[in-house]
Amino acid sequence: MSLKPVKIGICGLGTVGAGTFNVLSRNAQSIAARAQAVLQVVHVGARRDNPDCALGDTRVSRDIFDVARDPEVDILVELIGGTTVARELTEEAIRNGKHVVTANKALIAEFGNEIFALAEEHGVSVRFEAAVAGGIPIIKALREGLAGNRIEWLAGIINGTGNFILSEMREKGRDFADVLAQAQDLGYAEADPTFDVEGIDAAHKLVILASLAFGMPLQFAAVYTEGISRLTTQDVDYAEELGYRIKHLGVAKQNGDGVELRVHPTLIPEQRLLANVNGVMNAVLVEGDAVGPTLYYGAGAGAEPTASAVVADLVDLARDLAAGQSNRVPALGFAREQLRDLPVVPMAQVVTPWYLRMEAEDKPGVLSAVASLFSEQGISIEALIQKAPAEGETRVPLIVLTNRAAQGSVDAAVQAIEALDSITGEITRIRVEALDG
Amino acid sequence: MSLKPVKIGICGLGTVGAGTFNVLSRNAQSIAARAQAVLQVVHVGARRDNPDCALGDTRVSRDIFDVARDPEVDILVELIGGTTVARELTEEAIRNGKHVVTANKALIAEFGNEIFALAEEHGVSVRFEAAVAGGIPIIKALREGLAGNRIEWLAGIINGTGNFILSEMREKGRDFADVLAQAQDLGYAEADPTFDVEGIDAAHKLVILASLAFGMPLQFAAVYTEGISRLTTQDVDYAEELGYRIKHLGVAKQNGDGVELRVHPTLIPEQRLLANVNGVMNAVLVEGDAVGPTLYYGAGAGAEPTASAVVADLVDLARDLAAGQSNRVPALGFAREQLRDLPVVPMAQVVTPWYLRMEAEDKPGVLSAVASLFSEQGISIEALIQKAPAEGETRVPLIVLTNRAAQGSVDAAVQAIEALDSITGEITRIRVEALDG
Repeated sequence: MSLKPVKIGICGLGTVGAGTFNVLSRNAQSIAARAQAVLQVVHVGARRDNPDCALGDTRVSRDIFDVARDPEVDILVELIGGTTVARELTEEAIRNGKHVVTANKALIAEFGNEIFALAEEHGVSVRFEAAVAGGIPIIKALREGLAGNRIEWLAGIINGTGNFILSEMREKGRDFADVLAQAQDLGYAEADPTFDVEGIDAAHKLVILASLAFGMPLQFAAVYTEGISRLTTQDVDYAEELGYRIKHLGVAKQNGDGVELRVHPTLIPEQRLLANVNGVMNAVLVEGDAVGPTLYYGAGAGAEPTASAVVADLVDLARDLAAGQSNRVPALGFAREQLRDLPVVPMAQVVTPWYLRMEAEDKPGVLSAVASLFSEQGISIEALIQKAPAEGETRVPLIVLTNRAAQGSVDAAVQAIEALDSITGEITRIRVEALDG
Repeated sequence: MSLKPVKIGICGLGTVGAGTFNVLSRNAQSIAARAQAVLQVVHVGARRDNPDCALGDTRVSRDIFDVARDPEVDILVELIGGTTVARELTEEAIRNGKHVVTANKALIAEFGNEIFALAEEHGVSVRFEAAVAGGIPIIKALREGLAGNRIEWLAGIINGTGNFILSEMREKGRDFADVLAQAQDLGYAEADPTFDVEGIDAAHKLVILASLAFGMPLQFAAVYTEGISRLTTQDVDYAEELGYRIKHLGVAKQNGDGVELRVHPTLIPEQRLLANVNGVMNAVLVEGDAVGPTLYYGAGAGAEPTASAVVADLVDLARDLAAGQSNRVPALGFAREQLRDLPVVPMAQVVTPWYLRMEAEDKPGVLSAVASLFSEQGISIEALIQKAPAEGETRVPLIVLTNRAAQGSVDAAVQAIEALDSITGEITRIRVEALDG
């Protein structure tokens, strides 16, 4: 069989760029047998070479825009990261009639709407499987595999660095700051860890998943984002005592006519599969009306796991090219004119159970005062742990697990409880998700 | 937007047929927005109506072959089960130029090679996402999502009935026969449970997954198949004591120039996600050279989970039809002429750790005699449990966990050990899989 070549340009030769080049070389034969086309890297754009990657006689340009303008290139793979130059590069490639594959979650989350519109105008496709949860084919699952479903909600561990930190805190009783420093040493976390630990990276990914699930334009600015930097081992331990583990989740949920979009630490029952996803691994749980719950697990980052997703997109595009078809599957799964601009539900109206921890005076009447302030807001208490006071200490930790309550009611109850003389300092609040459909 | 209709005929109106009809009706709007086509059921073939399904004015034929010959039908959905009439129906539909979607694992496992060849000849596609692991989009993951990988191995819990029985045995200490009777009452198991508990159903699914993973023709007859009907709660308990759970796995593995294809009870470490998949749920763990391990979890059976997979196939085909493209993705992921007829490794050469349980006389020298017979076959012992004898009993259970050993060596050791006077009866043997890549 003589196979038609599909000509690929790779921009960016960091970890993922080198991984992509290497996977395409190593598995060239089986990839060709699957794609029914030879996937050939004809042009690499990179400021410098990468010793992990033997480019051979592949054409290399120091100006990545040369790749976007190369008439030989069918598909440009954008792996430079960031949003400014990456956006210019992507748009330049599209204007030159090239399909684009990207691993850039920030680019898609923040500028996807504009980029997809431009791609449609120019009759090319933009694919981004690698932008969410690394090698897990979760975008394909939502866009194609679950196409028959109304997606009710999804919840995911979609930041490996955060999950590594939380796993270490639980397994070894270590402090957040301590584990973060180790994660930076291991190269899991950046020197500036804000994107990972404050949930911005997870928010980028969540908004992409939500748009695919619910058929709505990307609304990155509307995601509620809360990081893990204020979590203590105390909370990790109390959660465990109550039968829960704390995970940093991205949650998207249909709620009436709107959707909830939120990233925050969450208590989940310890027997759930998601509670048992540890270290740098990612997993996404999706609830569809027909299929029920399905879960997708795998490496959320790393050179070759991410390359695996990039190559899957390339194979898909190669199959489209063979048929002279473009945008066979719309970027967000739904035809663009069918996307609905669903309102994002304000957090005050988001209802979950809550974990609350406070420091209380160890004296009669405190518990009943606290309970009555919850009751005034219509919040009922599911479980309560009151610890014995430490030696010479008159205050005790009081941990309350509530039933489902809107954040607005919890805010009001917390404010009233914090005003009690018998309560010291701020109350710690963490949402709970049962994840049982 | 005015959408082109894709005309569907459904044959078989049992649980899955009704589920498919209902999901297509209920989610018609979002399915059309995704498929960019209206998926319209124009003809149903069924011996009788199904009260769970309001067909309205849909045309109904009592002779299912009328659907296969209906010139209006673009895609025939085969949901009658069995292999004889189902094969005739499928081939008749293909000869009439119709694409086919089926949930029939036996049909694909046993006659897929012939059916795919015929489909290619007639320029139509055959899709079967629903044939393996119900609503989990595992076929799409292997065929498309992981297309960049060399798949090293996969291991799956792919029979819900068997997993329900094993979960109940472990959680409640109940006997196999007892739980099987309950599973039959609940409708999880057929009156004749052979297909489920003897592993035939799992073997059907495994061979399909293996062909997609490794790019080989379907070789159902070559699958080694061992059921769960001889498992005892004793073994479940001892496994737990050693830190393992017993699951009924389908395992497919690249091994030198060949592949292992086997279905059998397996001890897996209790902290693995697969060990924590309980009840009727299914999950498949796939190890790719680039992506590493990925796992896919969900309902393996049931009306709407299975319908979810059928509809995903219909949406895929609708997208192909829009482009006038057929067989965009080959049935087994690889171009048919690129499939390699890999030899199946004889079980004697399959290497795993082993769990062995025997009844031994409680007297000096027995342990050393047993150990030396293992040693003679080059098998080393990883762990050993010797129980105290019960009151008035002179024999004790002896449980051995070996390191990795070929089945041939284990067979020889077992034969020699069973010949010892101090050992009574047959030795129970169960394979162990670490599932750690």
